Amino acid sequence: MAYNLAPLQQLVEQFERMPGIGHKTAQRMAFYILGLSKEQAQEFANAVTNAHTKIKQCKICCDLADDELCPVCKSETRDKSVICVVEDPRDVAAIERTHEYNGTYHVLHGAISPMDNRGPDSIKIKELLARLKDGSVDEVIMATNPTVEGEATAMYISRLLKPMGITVSRLAYGVPVGADLEYADEVTLSRALEGRSVI
Amino acid sequence: MAYNLAPLQQLVEQFERMPGIGHKTAQRMAFYILGLSKEQAQEFANAVTNAHTKIKQCKICCDLADDELCPVCKSETRDKSVICVVEDPRDVAAIERTHEYNGTYHVLHGAISPMDNRGPDSIKIKELLARLKDGSVDEVIMATNPTVEGEATAMYISRLLKPMGITVSRLAYGVPVGADLEYADEVTLSRALEGRSVI
Repeated sequence: MAYNLAPLQQLVEQFERMPGIGHKTAQRMAFYILGLSKEQAQEFANAVTNAHTKIKQCKICCDLADDELCPVCKSETRDKSVICVVEDPRDVAAIERTHEYNGTYHVLHGAISPMDNRGPDSIKIKELLARLKDGSVDEVIMATNPTVEGEATAMYISRLLKPMGITVSRLAYGVPVGADLEYADEVTLSRALEGRSVI
Repeated sequence: MAYNLAPLQQLVEQFERMPGIGHKTAQRMAFYILGLSKEQAQEFANAVTNAHTKIKQCKICCDLADDELCPVCKSETRDKSVICVVEDPRDVAAIERTHEYNGTYHVLHGAISPMDNRGPDSIKIKELLARLKDGSVDEVIMATNPTVEGEATAMYISRLLKPMGITVSRLAYGVPVGADLEYADEVTLSRALEGRSVI
């Protein structure tokens, strides 16, 4: 009967809508919330609304930011002549973790996907073109996902940029470090062969 | 860099504290929240605070309730002479799903566990004894978990109740329906042998 309680049911439903969360997990999470103290529950609810109201998009690169500009665009030490184009803010975080890249980013917030009715206008390509107008950018690195949609987006953007005299590069394909060749799929393996380098 | 944003970081931390939620899942959930519309995020936050403020404990059985009494205790058709004692509100829901039980419940909110410093006073045994004073209850079914703590709690309570002339019963042990005998552990199997019945 406990589950007929409307407030509990509503909370379970909210959790169930999250990606990768099933009914059982959602219930466990709802019971966790009930077990919190009043202050902790309020803190949790505030974290949700705060994240939503305080986090906006950077005016330059469309990455997440808690200010007009994101930390990368604000920084004076980053190389503004290179832009790395990614699909998602999480990809920015992934590349930042390598500590190997010192340029700026551009977050498309998606990829072109005719199947899902998403054309070039539904992602942040216009904003990218606007950044390239003043000629200060030399290279654009396409770091969209190695999927059909990511590929198509990279191709589409590179065709737009090449006439502007900008170098467009693409992340290397190959076998991931630490993986087992035996388990690599054929496409990855043939790309790794194509892209082999002399040692 | 995106992860250095304080509001996002706080939200990720809130999700990480939940049972069974790791860092990656917490991040995914936080990004899901960011992707919601303003109204949806507000609705989510409200569901959290609502569940917390509106759900209390039933004055009789200590189950969750959105009123003074839970639906079971309020019901006129439930048999008030039988009480099924469980550890957790989720156990009430599990037993309700069988549609086989028409008595009332008592939720202990835990089990006796000296290892975790939880004695008889930290669970709702006092409340159970208070319900038995007027002599209207004939049977108490101990449905605590089949763990060391659940066992100990069942034994402790049964010793308190027997002198009061109340029948105390325990859920049957045995192999779960649909399981494979090969994979049943020895303790379960020996309990199933002990409890065998003539067919």
